[in-house]
Order: sequence, then C-alpha cells, then structure tokens
Amino acid sequence: MSRSERPSEDSLIARFFAPIAGEGGLGLKDDAARLTPTPSHDLVLTTDALVERVHFLPEDAPGSIARKALGVNVSDLAAKGADPAGFLLSLALPDSWTESWLADFAVGLGQASRDFSCPLLGGDTVKARGALTLSVTAVGQVPTGRMVQRTTAQAGDLVCVTGIIGDAALGLKLRAAPAWSNDLSPDEKAHLADRYLHPQPRYRLAAALRDHASAAMDVSDGLAGDLAKMMRASGVSAVVEADRVPLSAAVAKAVQTSSDLLDVALTGGDDYEILCTVPEKALDSFRQEADRIGIPLSVIGRVVSGHDRPVFRMNGLERRYDVGSYQHF
Amino acid sequence: MSRSERPSEDSLIARFFAPIAGEGGLGLKDDAARLTPTPSHDLVLTTDALVERVHFLPEDAPGSIARKALGVNVSDLAAKGADPAGFLLSLALPDSWTESWLADFAVGLGQASRDFSCPLLGGDTVKARGALTLSVTAVGQVPTGRMVQRTTAQAGDLVCVTGIIGDAALGLKLRAAPAWSNDLSPDEKAHLADRYLHPQPRYRLAAALRDHASAAMDVSDGLAGDLAKMMRASGVSAVVEADRVPLSAAVAKAVQTSSDLLDVALTGGDDYEILCTVPEKALDSFRQEADRIGIPLSVIGRVVSGHDRPVFRMNGLERRYDVGSYQHF
Repeated sequence: MSRSERPSEDSLIARFFAPIAGEGGLGLKDDAARLTPTPSHDLVLTTDALVERVHFLPEDAPGSIARKALGVNVSDLAAKGADPAGFLLSLALPDSWTESWLADFAVGLGQASRDFSCPLLGGDTVKARGALTLSVTAVGQVPTGRMVQRTTAQAGDLVCVTGIIGDAALGLKLRAAPAWSNDLSPDEKAHLADRYLHPQPRYRLAAALRDHASAAMDVSDGLAGDLAKMMRASGVSAVVEADRVPLSAAVAKAVQTSSDLLDVALTGGDDYEILCTVPEKALDSFRQEADRIGIPLSVIGRVVSGHDRPVFRMNGLERRYDVGSYQHF
Repeated sequence: MSRSERPSEDSLIARFFAPIAGEGGLGLKDDAARLTPTPSHDLVLTTDALVERVHFLPEDAPGSIARKALGVNVSDLAAKGADPAGFLLSLALPDSWTESWLADFAVGLGQASRDFSCPLLGGDTVKARGALTLSVTAVGQVPTGRMVQRTTAQAGDLVCVTGIIGDAALGLKLRAAPAWSNDLSPDEKAHLADRYLHPQPRYRLAAALRDHASAAMDVSDGLAGDLAKMMRASGVSAVVEADRVPLSAAVAKAVQTSSDLLDVALTGGDDYEILCTVPEKALDSFRQEADRIGIPLSVIGRVVSGHDRPVFRMNGLERRYDVGSYQHF
C-alpha cells in the first residue's frame, strides 16, 4: 500500500482503537477523555515509554508489545495499591507500519485492557522519525491518602516479593542462544522467553498492598537495584537472604550451569513483580490475601537501619550490588 | 562528555525535573504521582506527542519545544472547559542530547508549567532510537458533567473563534524564506515565527466555555478542517464568512501579495485558538467574560443543519475545504 493511500489519523483511530475504547473515551471522537473519579479517592498517575530495540525487539509480536506497554504501567499502579481506572496511549509509528501490524497491536491492546480492567481512554498517533515509540499513561484510584509509597519502609519490616525473579532477564539473554541455554528443555526456554515478553502485572494485589504494606514498588530495573532505591528513598537499608529469592526451575538450572547468572537474575530487569515491605505483625494477613488471589509471596529479608546499600547474603558471603546497575541511560 | 559519564536517569530527574515538579509529583521519587481530585469534579485527560522534524525543528530553542509540548495539551484542556491540574512527560532522548540542552528544556518547561498553572506530576525518560520524541499527558478538572464536548453543536448556534488564525501556518512557511515574505517587515516576520513556536493556550477561557459554549475544540489542524470535524461529530454543518476570520496585519499583508495564502491561513495548523459554538442568546455574556480576561473573540459564522462540509463564503463565492486537508499521516 503506497504512502498516499494510507488512512488518515482519524480513520485509523476509528477503525483500530475506537472499538477497544472504554466509556470515558467518548468513542475517541473528542480531544480529551473524561473520567469521573470515585468519591473519596485519590488518583494515581504513571507514565512509561517503550522504544523498539531498547524495551522490545522488532520481531516481537505486535500484540505482545501492546500488552507489555500497558502491563508495565499497570504494574506501577498495582505497586502503589491503586486499582486501574484507564489509560492513554501515545504511539509514534515509523513510516514502515502496516495495517496488519496495527490491527494485531490493537487486538493485543484490547485483550490486555480487558485482562487488567484498564480501559483505553484516549491517545495520540504521530509519525515517528526513527523507531516505533510508545508511551502509556495509566490512571488508577486509591481511597484518599492510601497510596502506597516508596519512602515509608521502616527498620524491622519484612522484605517481600511476589512471584518469581530473574526469568525475564534470562529470557532476554536467551535470544542470543548462549551456551548455558543448551542445558534447558524447550519448555524451560519457552517459559523464560514468555516471561520477558509478557509481564503479568500484579494488579489483583493492590488492595492487599494498601492494607498491609508499609512501602512498595514494582521490580522493573532489577531486584537488587530497585530494593536499593526503595531503601534509600526510605532512609533505611536491608539484609536479603539470596537463597530465599524465588527462582524458577529454569533459572535455578541455568545458575547451576553458569553461577554468574544469579547476578543476572538479581540485577536484570523486566520482572514486574511487586517488591514491598510489611510489618511483621501484618505478614499473616497479607499472606492470606495473596494466597486467596493466587499470587505467590516470598519473604526474602528484613529492613534494617542504616544508609548502606542492601546486603545479599549467599553461601556465607555478603554481597552489595551497585545501585543502578541497570540504567536507562 | 562521553557516554559513560552520562548521569543516570535518576540523577537526571533529580537534577533537572524534580526542582520544577508540583506537590503531587512527590519529588519525582516514586513510581507514580498522586492527585487528589476536587470533590464533585470530573477529570479531563488528553495526550499529545511531538516529534522532531514533524512538530518542531532541531534548531528550535529547547525551552520553546518544552513550552509547545505542554501548551498544545493545555490548549486541549481549555477547549473542554477544564482547568489544568497537572501533567506527565514522557521524553525519548536521542544519544546526542547534552546537559545544556536538557537544562534549557527543563527551565522552559518549568516556566510554561507556572504560566499555565499546570504542575509537573511525573514522567519517564528513555533512550530514543531516532529523533527526539516527547509525549505529554495533561489532566484537567471540570465540575461533574460540565466537560464541553465536540459533538454537541446545535443548528442556529454562532461559530466563534478566539484570537488570530493563520499566523502559525505562515510562521512555519516563513522558514523557507518564500518570495511573499519579502514584503513583510522584520517585526511582522518575527510575529509570525513566534506564533508558530509559542502557542498561547487559552486556558483562562475554560470557565467561560463551560458556562456558555454548546461545543468546542482547539484549532490545531487548521480552522477549516477542525470546524468540519466538529460539525461532523455534531451531525450538523456551518456557514462561515471568510472575511470575519480574524487575521493579523502580517497575514493580511501576505494574503494581498499572494492570495492563495488565505487557504494556508484557513487550513494550516498550529493555531491553538479555541473554536466553539455558542447559542445566540449566550453570546453577550460569553463576550463579556472573554473581554474581561482579555481574550479576543470573533463570530465567524453560524451552525446550520445538514451534513455537508462547512461553507466558507468569500467575495461572493462559496468554498468547501476538504476535511482533513491537514493529516498527521
């Protein structure tokens, strides 16, 4: 299809995005969306951008890219104890876009939007000068004053993490077919690859987090670095028992083959699990809630006073990772 | 400065953006921003992306780019009758960025944020693969149910526009030093150039719009095309007296030199004025409000029933412009 036969922005929106929009999106026919907040609630707002070859790869399925763009933002909301209310999408499309790519992208976005109960409210579509670039702004709600912050961890609290750590980082590395991957079964490889492509934001944990956690954030830039950020923001430190960090069978096997992969698992990005601190007396109730909704929870350490980087204890040794070992710049 | 000496995203945020953040931004230390909505108000949300060489030029001052990115979003809020509550910025920076560019960008953004009473709440900074790409999501508030829509113009209403039309479109064309520009004085050229670079969102008109306008949108893609969009969305048409469309002395002079520039003025983009429809009986009150806050207002035509594209009457002729004469794709 030649450039001049391309649909206008309006027809593109009407065809691909209006069908997946929520009620507040007003059919995507207006300049803006409307959201009536729940009374006695605060809004929580977050924005995350994804760039081709930085945050995803050109060969990734369009629906997976869409799901990831929304998922990483919903993950931020979840960590703040916020229930999703909707999102806006800004999409800079390179000249090489095709209708079939965009159709698949919209289907994936619509599916993710339904899965996460986070309706599309609006957006903007522009021409990129370079790689495909997406920016999602997600809006969530918490009862007034109940947003879970990053700055409020207390010495003595337990450090908890949901799900499994390190799968996504190894899933990304797997694409280069490293030697260690030869020992993994096809299922194990598929598991790791899927975890990189398809983050599972823990939005169902939001209510339990605001009821029980003293501080929380999502693990997007690696467990070690994100824990260090949260402890620094709270003016405390932490001690982590590395063997309590939940690893999948695939990662555990890879670490046996190549022990430096443990560092990759602990410092790699894209986990999109929830890292939180919980007062000891709240742990049982928090765990019951997590169990009830089927989200695995591991206690991996404890908040301590001090300003040093968190310590990871492993095999009788103590290890402190550089803060920001993973950087966007 | 070599790549490896570049500050991390966290230090970049702390240095350039945290100082200009509003209270809801929580010092930009958290994953998300918090906004406590005014009771009995709806939120209005809009997002607009700007791409280098599409929406601005590499040689534009960084502060001007920042102001435009925020301004075009605040303009959308204003057209919906919404008072600004805050914004989030997603910034994809190409590898060639410099600290001085970013410092100037942040100063311009902070100034615009204060001018428009629209505080920075949060953002994301990522590495671009290609041109500088910015996406702003702005949040505004209106009393519940009072958002001014695009779909509610009524036959018989007057068609009004604020300020001056066509300056920005000619200001952009001026950069190629066309023959017609030889007749303009340096001041006239500077005026047109400035109007392209520095849109003046009409945020102070928001309250008057929700009190008096039956429908509204901002003029970003050209008066003729945007009017056609609003009429179509409302299921009506319009008749415009072209000689009532407010032009600056500079544009009027340019049109005298080259008559086809009138089409450029009427169909070009980047005006960021407000186009609205007002019931005849509400006009006096609306004009009084606009006068009081110093925003010029012109009645340029009338909404009529029908589904044709709006007619522009000029010199005894009738002209219908193609809808979407300006397209992002």
